[in-house]
Amino acid sequence: MESTKGRGKLVIIGGAEDKEGDCKILREFVRAAGGTDAKIAILTAATSEPRESGEDYIRVFERLGVEEVTVLNTIHKDDGDDPKNLEILENATGAFFTGGDQARILEYIKGTKLDSLLHQRHKEGMVIGGTSAGAAMMPDLMIVEGDSETNPRMDAIEMGEGMGFIHSVVIDQHFAQRGRLGRLVSALLQQPANLGFGIDEDTAMIVDGDELTVVGRGAVTVVDESDATYNNLDELLKDEAMAVCGVKLHILPQGFRFNLKTRKPISLEISKKEAESPVLQTA
Amino acid sequence: MESTKGRGKLVIIGGAEDKEGDCKILREFVRAAGGTDAKIAILTAATSEPRESGEDYIRVFERLGVEEVTVLNTIHKDDGDDPKNLEILENATGAFFTGGDQARILEYIKGTKLDSLLHQRHKEGMVIGGTSAGAAMMPDLMIVEGDSETNPRMDAIEMGEGMGFIHSVVIDQHFAQRGRLGRLVSALLQQPANLGFGIDEDTAMIVDGDELTVVGRGAVTVVDESDATYNNLDELLKDEAMAVCGVKLHILPQGFRFNLKTRKPISLEISKKEAESPVLQTA
Repeated sequence: MESTKGRGKLVIIGGAEDKEGDCKILREFVRAAGGTDAKIAILTAATSEPRESGEDYIRVFERLGVEEVTVLNTIHKDDGDDPKNLEILENATGAFFTGGDQARILEYIKGTKLDSLLHQRHKEGMVIGGTSAGAAMMPDLMIVEGDSETNPRMDAIEMGEGMGFIHSVVIDQHFAQRGRLGRLVSALLQQPANLGFGIDEDTAMIVDGDELTVVGRGAVTVVDESDATYNNLDELLKDEAMAVCGVKLHILPQGFRFNLKTRKPISLEISKKEAESPVLQTA
Repeated sequence: MESTKGRGKLVIIGGAEDKEGDCKILREFVRAAGGTDAKIAILTAATSEPRESGEDYIRVFERLGVEEVTVLNTIHKDDGDDPKNLEILENATGAFFTGGDQARILEYIKGTKLDSLLHQRHKEGMVIGGTSAGAAMMPDLMIVEGDSETNPRMDAIEMGEGMGFIHSVVIDQHFAQRGRLGRLVSALLQQPANLGFGIDEDTAMIVDGDELTVVGRGAVTVVDESDATYNNLDELLKDEAMAVCGVKLHILPQGFRFNLKTRKPISLEISKKEAESPVLQTA
């Protein structure tokens, strides 16, 4: 496995994060990116309303004291190779992907110079944040679209290539709010060794090396199908209900941590011991 | 544990079962209750529109060939002791509880002569069916009401006494359609040794002794928290997010079975061997 040493954190948000109140999650994104000295590049590729979405985030990041906040223009196919965009990102300490449609992020950015530079800067320590579509696109393989509020079915989801900032996981967003257990369980079918993360609204997982910490109002549901059996796949037609036995779940709220390598929540004792220190100082 | 030998089946339906098409689930209820010779008592206590609901079920049961279908009047507090109602039930081979509000079933029937007679007739072989509220009320302890589409929280659900036709389980309905994983996980907190069953719409679990079989379009999600740990209960205020680690899930569609004593899905091999025989002839 590729080393994650020296890489920037990933702030992966389940959508609908607070932008008006205490901005708990965006605050942690800014802090990870360098606090008031942060230089933040906003990527609006996912949304069909880039101006509005960009302005929203400029407003909140400026309110939190960041002086350099710039929206990258990614409205034409060749904007991903635009030297102006590359120059901004070259100096950024944090890149933030707005919500929208994750397929648009891939369409506008995947394979461009911006894509390479995002990965390079991330390896050098730049923090990458993303909400909703900006969360879904993080892994190698992402949920392109799918049905909410359904039991697992082979045709419940469409998977596709993601941006590859994190490996061997699948991420779903608006998790509890849109009833997406069946969708996430279905998504893991293609690669059961992967871990599934269902992130609630106004909730984030902050990935730092091999460990993640949960921040926000809801929870992150970890779905582990590595020991699961799919009992009726041979016989299934496309729209029929999948049988999945032996799925393991962990539901982790604010302050809880999870180790991506051991596939285990951080034990009760350690969590308790650390409960007094601020969430992000978990070494 | 009380013996379940000789008891009638329980047909526990997640709501919104098909009443216009092939009526797969209601058909199995009727078959279990004696087919065209069935004598069915409809209990509308849960609904504030007993006449409409009663007539709906009379229509569908008659369409399936049942000649004796009677609605029990339970609109006044003392209807539960009404000799007319008791006489009907005395002769019934199947009792069917409509949807509505499960608290009304308890209010009108619990502790009445009808309650005792329902349990007695069930022990003698009478089938009991129920949909939605009529499913929720089946266990000793039921979800009275609760929030859908939430992560687990201590205040997500209100539990209360159920009708006690099945022991050591909690039943939730409209499961995938209303995103009720968090609610069911929360409901098991009071008795983690119990099994949780989340039944999708137009889906049922048919309990026969220690075994259940799934019928219908969706799935039954079995939530087993017997090995789970609740990691932050000591510190939680009422509206804060619960941490639950090590929950086991089985998602079982049509034809799949589960043993309530061993707490295990019936193994792949056995299921396959029996896949050719009709669902309900699983001995």
